[in-house]
Amino acid sequence: MNPPASGASPTVRVSASEERAVIENVLIAAGAVATDAAVQAEMLVEGDLRGHASHGVRRLPVLVERLRAGLIVSGVDAEHEWTAPGALAVDGRRGFGPVVARKAVDMVLDRARTQGIALASIRNSGHVGMLAPYVESMGAAGCIGIASTISEALVHPWGGIRAMVGTNPLGIGVPTGGEPLVLDMSTGAVSMGKIIDHAARGEAIPLGWAVDSDGRQTTDAAAAVSGAISPFGGAKGYALGIALEALVALLSGSSLGTDVMGTLDTVHPPTKGDVFIAISVEALGLQPRLPAIAAYLDVVRGSGRAAEDGGVPAVSVPGDRARQVRERHLREGVPISAELWQRILMLERGSA
Amino acid sequence: MNPPASGASPTVRVSASEERAVIENVLIAAGAVATDAAVQAEMLVEGDLRGHASHGVRRLPVLVERLRAGLIVSGVDAEHEWTAPGALAVDGRRGFGPVVARKAVDMVLDRARTQGIALASIRNSGHVGMLAPYVESMGAAGCIGIASTISEALVHPWGGIRAMVGTNPLGIGVPTGGEPLVLDMSTGAVSMGKIIDHAARGEAIPLGWAVDSDGRQTTDAAAAVSGAISPFGGAKGYALGIALEALVALLSGSSLGTDVMGTLDTVHPPTKGDVFIAISVEALGLQPRLPAIAAYLDVVRGSGRAAEDGGVPAVSVPGDRARQVRERHLREGVPISAELWQRILMLERGSA
Repeated sequence: MNPPASGASPTVRVSASEERAVIENVLIAAGAVATDAAVQAEMLVEGDLRGHASHGVRRLPVLVERLRAGLIVSGVDAEHEWTAPGALAVDGRRGFGPVVARKAVDMVLDRARTQGIALASIRNSGHVGMLAPYVESMGAAGCIGIASTISEALVHPWGGIRAMVGTNPLGIGVPTGGEPLVLDMSTGAVSMGKIIDHAARGEAIPLGWAVDSDGRQTTDAAAAVSGAISPFGGAKGYALGIALEALVALLSGSSLGTDVMGTLDTVHPPTKGDVFIAISVEALGLQPRLPAIAAYLDVVRGSGRAAEDGGVPAVSVPGDRARQVRERHLREGVPISAELWQRILMLERGSA
Repeated sequence: MNPPASGASPTVRVSASEERAVIENVLIAAGAVATDAAVQAEMLVEGDLRGHASHGVRRLPVLVERLRAGLIVSGVDAEHEWTAPGALAVDGRRGFGPVVARKAVDMVLDRARTQGIALASIRNSGHVGMLAPYVESMGAAGCIGIASTISEALVHPWGGIRAMVGTNPLGIGVPTGGEPLVLDMSTGAVSMGKIIDHAARGEAIPLGWAVDSDGRQTTDAAAAVSGAISPFGGAKGYALGIALEALVALLSGSSLGTDVMGTLDTVHPPTKGDVFIAISVEALGLQPRLPAIAAYLDVVRGSGRAAEDGGVPAVSVPGDRARQVRERHLREGVPISAELWQRILMLERGSA
């Protein structure tokens, strides 16, 4: 651990391996079995490594509370049923989201090798974290990966005035022979975490991010916290978000809209759902096409104006920037709020 | 056919059945077999019925030229190969897009009944038209439908200055027991047809729709026509569009980026691709969940402010508005530009 960087909001630099070890210790002390703790810790570290603190160690205190309250259960295997040759239904039995999801992804990757395409739908399981690590690993395993998960209702419908839809992200991983293309995008204009951060600093938010509790567009971050996030991209982003809500809920048997609970709170069992689809490049004989995909993406990368500072090119392919940030954080350490890290270390020492 | 409506741009009202019959006559006169002509005509009529003239009879003159030039071939069956139990590869052999796609969709709907999930990828086939009618019919057949197709490069990457990505739409149909949810959205901010219409009328376009040939944001419609459409929703819309480009090209063996041709022009064979995925509600035993989906969507529909004129509610579910427009056009006739309809009738008489 290095000294905090200077600045208004002090951060410390923690190596990924140190962060992982501390999270594992905290989870095990709270009752997790070691194998579960390792998978959950890995996913939180990935969030911080990729520069998405909202999916990083910041979530650990809530996970610990949920574990202590029996809302997350460790050491219990999920129930798997192949309801059709290409379709796996999973009851996560309140397991850690990443533990249940990683196992399901492994099973559909395997099944896609014989079926060509396979689908897993998951219910009764914890928050999966970012979708990027899943679809990236599917891409690296030679499969196209498609993933979605739904969240608590935080986004208002287009033309609507209150939160009715989750921030429902869509993840797509496409193999290229080299680094896969990795899409991971929320259908909200912004995360609630970012709005809360603005409110805490007393800063205004841009118009278009959110509405207040009366459904009016607002630049007041505090008013937005008690209102709703706007969908990204207007009517289209809303349409995509609600389509994913219906699709995931139908496949997984999750709740919908304001009945979705148990990823952000410390009192409700998880009622959201997750879906993962794998399509095997090898089973379909598509390997000869990979170089054309890679070549196209390189042409796109080279198609922008050079950045004025000679640094990062202006055009990137989904996954590029997260990969660059991740590599830098692996070298230089992960920046974590000093206050948060102190809290985590106190958790580790059993004094919180 | 009723007299033209008054206004700057005169339109005529044509019944859907009259429009369909005229299009069929034109296609048959240009060499199409009757069964192919019927399917292609149906899809153009659906475009006009749903209020998307850019996918309506406006496209007929190009289809006729492509047919005469041998770039569309009628009366030849596509080649179908199940490369895995859940994956169908289709060589359209230059058939009409809707003819090849409808057959492929029927095959994956059927296969999904035993496999749970099935995928079709199509190459060497004409423009499919809107995705909505396909995913809607999949939803009505008790399957979740997911569809995408790629187009000529018309959209610039986020941060980029020239067109490198298609307007690549995403379609999702979700059964509800009643009318399915139907998402059909382009990943471009607007269609090139709309920009061309503005240019023809000498009207400015809103900032954010497009860039000029130097990659600068522009409100000059004529400059935008020789530039590139912007992605919808900024970086996220771009990321979704390029992910679909890579996914469709890998699965179908289509071309990519500026090598995609043959849907808008009259000289190139079709080099784009299409993908359809069907997931069977019945095979997976999901029917008991349909009422919850329908109930949620009804709550969302009722969650907005009442429209000020007491008319259409402010919040709708994807597919609602197109369905309303379609029903009105079925009753009142389809509005078609009078000039265009005259041109179509001349085509029918063999004098164009």
